Amino acid sequence: MSHVLSTSCSLKLSSSRKSYSRALDRHPASCPTLFNFGSSRGALRRLVLQEKRTQRSCVAHAATIPISQESLTETSSGSDQTSSGSAKAQRVLVIGGDGYCGWATALHLSKKGYEVAIADNLIRRLFDHQLGLDSLTPIASIHNRLRCWKSLTGKTIELYIGDICDFEFLSETFKSFEPDAAVHFGEQRSAPYSMIDRTRAVFTQHNNVIGTLNVLFAIKEFREQCHLVKLGTMGEYGTPNIDIEEGYITITHNGRTDTLPYPKQASSFYHLSKVHDSNNIAFTCKAWGIRATDLNQGVVYGVRTDETEMHKVLCNRFDYDGVFGTALNRFCVQAAVGHPLTVYGKGGQTRGYLDIRDTVQCVELAIANPAESGEFRVFNQFTEQFSVHELASLATKAGEKLGLDVKTISVPNPRVEAEEHYYNAKHTKLIELGLKPHLLSDSLLDSLLNFAIRFKDRVDMKQIMPNVSWRKIGVKPKTAAA
Amino acid sequence: MSHVLSTSCSLKLSSSRKSYSRALDRHPASCPTLFNFGSSRGALRRLVLQEKRTQRSCVAHAATIPISQESLTETSSGSDQTSSGSAKAQRVLVIGGDGYCGWATALHLSKKGYEVAIADNLIRRLFDHQLGLDSLTPIASIHNRLRCWKSLTGKTIELYIGDICDFEFLSETFKSFEPDAAVHFGEQRSAPYSMIDRTRAVFTQHNNVIGTLNVLFAIKEFREQCHLVKLGTMGEYGTPNIDIEEGYITITHNGRTDTLPYPKQASSFYHLSKVHDSNNIAFTCKAWGIRATDLNQGVVYGVRTDETEMHKVLCNRFDYDGVFGTALNRFCVQAAVGHPLTVYGKGGQTRGYLDIRDTVQCVELAIANPAESGEFRVFNQFTEQFSVHELASLATKAGEKLGLDVKTISVPNPRVEAEEHYYNAKHTKLIELGLKPHLLSDSLLDSLLNFAIRFKDRVDMKQIMPNVSWRKIGVKPKTAAA
Repeated sequence: MSHVLSTSCSLKLSSSRKSYSRALDRHPASCPTLFNFGSSRGALRRLVLQEKRTQRSCVAHAATIPISQESLTETSSGSDQTSSGSAKAQRVLVIGGDGYCGWATALHLSKKGYEVAIADNLIRRLFDHQLGLDSLTPIASIHNRLRCWKSLTGKTIELYIGDICDFEFLSETFKSFEPDAAVHFGEQRSAPYSMIDRTRAVFTQHNNVIGTLNVLFAIKEFREQCHLVKLGTMGEYGTPNIDIEEGYITITHNGRTDTLPYPKQASSFYHLSKVHDSNNIAFTCKAWGIRATDLNQGVVYGVRTDETEMHKVLCNRFDYDGVFGTALNRFCVQAAVGHPLTVYGKGGQTRGYLDIRDTVQCVELAIANPAESGEFRVFNQFTEQFSVHELASLATKAGEKLGLDVKTISVPNPRVEAEEHYYNAKHTKLIELGLKPHLLSDSLLDSLLNFAIRFKDRVDMKQIMPNVSWRKIGVKPKTAAA
Repeated sequence: MSHVLSTSCSLKLSSSRKSYSRALDRHPASCPTLFNFGSSRGALRRLVLQEKRTQRSCVAHAATIPISQESLTETSSGSDQTSSGSAKAQRVLVIGGDGYCGWATALHLSKKGYEVAIADNLIRRLFDHQLGLDSLTPIASIHNRLRCWKSLTGKTIELYIGDICDFEFLSETFKSFEPDAAVHFGEQRSAPYSMIDRTRAVFTQHNNVIGTLNVLFAIKEFREQCHLVKLGTMGEYGTPNIDIEEGYITITHNGRTDTLPYPKQASSFYHLSKVHDSNNIAFTCKAWGIRATDLNQGVVYGVRTDETEMHKVLCNRFDYDGVFGTALNRFCVQAAVGHPLTVYGKGGQTRGYLDIRDTVQCVELAIANPAESGEFRVFNQFTEQFSVHELASLATKAGEKLGLDVKTISVPNPRVEAEEHYYNAKHTKLIELGLKPHLLSDSLLDSLLNFAIRFKDRVDMKQIMPNVSWRKIGVKPKTAAA
């Protein structure tokens, strides 16, 4: 997938989305050069750039394009040091830093004084193109996002465009950036996407498993002290009838005791790919002394973080569709446009949830408190549990306060999962490290609903209903036209 | 890897191996046409064959070459029905049927009256070529093996040459052969191979995981009642400090109880690939109603089965090298050539072992007693536990009886594994189905040692020592010349 190169993104912004055009008209004076879309001169300069970094002997290769601020903001002073950064700032590579959680995290870490680089092949944007989907919010190209960030904060985030399944790309990125920590969001992250057809199932497992293997090899070969912070999912555990622990469980059996990896029961090819990753990473910690933290994240809701709300060009993506949309975000959009909230089956499915502001906080806590060499550390990254029914009820009440008439319907469950079950998952380790949770509150729901209402003209009603079936997945490729 | 086509194998037999040439001189009259190696007329006919089968509407595609007996033994009567087969015989596709366990199994099932086909890309032979390894025993091409089998028994085993990672090939194979059971040996099966370099690690996980995903999709799409009999490994469990159960463990935790997948702790990229497979298969049993049996096999020893010893051309492979050789087989070869037995580290590593005659028996029992629709059944397939030290001691005693002076040396352990540990693995389910174990006896060891002595002129001393390190694996590809 390394053919997905940087130039494709610059062009995307020249599309004729009305609401976005309006947003552009209101751009503040603090980002004077941001909206020079698709400058062919700038684009060409980026593509041919053979950059020599002053303090590191690095030559950018054709497939690895560290786009430093020098080439992006032509008004820059020429320094590539961030204002708050020092020579000793931790260097963090955010793999998948153009995505929903990755983008928010990259900005948060940059703001916190880390030296940040993003590695991304931008394929999440391609998925939208291919499936005919789009973010509720207009999102700028990664190039313009980073220009804006530099303009607002003086901080540079380096950009490496390429595919981590391409080991040459990843090698060059590691050798060039020399990360102290690698935060790995760079996976296909939708369960329904992985269940569309055989090709997507195979893509998801190949992409996620091999990409992660490559990251492990890159750390071993080039940066053996680099701390891997890997995004897992609470979905790896499934819904066992006993309490879910954080990664490990102590079992006494026939009079003997051992602490073993917590048994996994994932229920989509996507969730399974994360289980495979966890097993692979655990092995390399033991065999090679890799230091790793596996963040088994719950369902993320919300869109704003302190950093992304600094400017419209920094706005995060917000998915509400049946493939990439997560439960609460989808409900808010449904309420905003007068569509009934779609509860799958009985609605008793209970999961862990967290605000995206806690995602970025958790990742920063993991980086600031790294795993030991050889340690495979697992944190359950969520703050509260809700059933789907409880979420629907909360969204209904919030809608009513805003004068919306919110209905709920049960739709046939496209997934194969228990719809009523015991669920009690531990999540104390990140609290112990200092996490201050943003619990789901009336005010957050109000804000999220208002956000959805603000962008409701952009809602494509055809995207709302689930159209991927766990049972009906077949071998015939599903094309966009099908 | 689908470029590994049939013609490459016919040619291999024209090599100038002395001991094999001798064996050929002694071929019995019952296989008159077997040694017409590399017949270009036959090879060409096979490649262009567009076969119409009489009872099934099947056209062989270019990538799928069902080589029926008509094209193989030109003296054949023209019937493609086996003598003992009936219209109701179970049809079993043996994926990887040219390998060590697969070949023995295919013959055993054919002898038992099953209608058998082999699907194989023959890549195991390519691994030997690339790494400069060879079986202790001379092995015939798959084409000649099948001709011989037909000649001796009148039974046809169909052959599909191709790669199950190529879904078009696999689809055509399923549609053409219409299996009632698929026995899946078609994986890269060496832990050291998976630890040679990054490329082999990635190959192993991709090949095994995607191949198995494809088999699951093929069953779902084309033969939903087909019983998948998948070869797993006891190595999936690692060496926990509690008893190893067969696939599942009942856990009581904080006052609640559930039966969950047994926690896995695999310790090579190969073993991990089998864990990934198990998780993927379990999901599809639940989501799609696949019926599957996972055979977590121990270390296999021995070479002869009732069927492979019927004729030299049917002889199985026997690996003694540091990459593909398994412990007891390796010790016998070392004893035969006067090389010290190489014990890795402390030698307390304890594993389950079984005779290859029990491998074929277990697979047949699994097929004859299929899993229910939706059931993911796990059997631990071994008959006895031994530590490496115990095996070395047994081989030493057997060698002394034959007048050999057998020494043992401890070599630095190339693997990362516990060298002294608790080990107690359950293995009752196959016994309950009727397995009659061939336990490791003095007579078997005598026979195995004599076998090794018989072929000792073929031993390449350079292959004996382990040369793959779990800790030193790197990203630079290891070439044969390195």
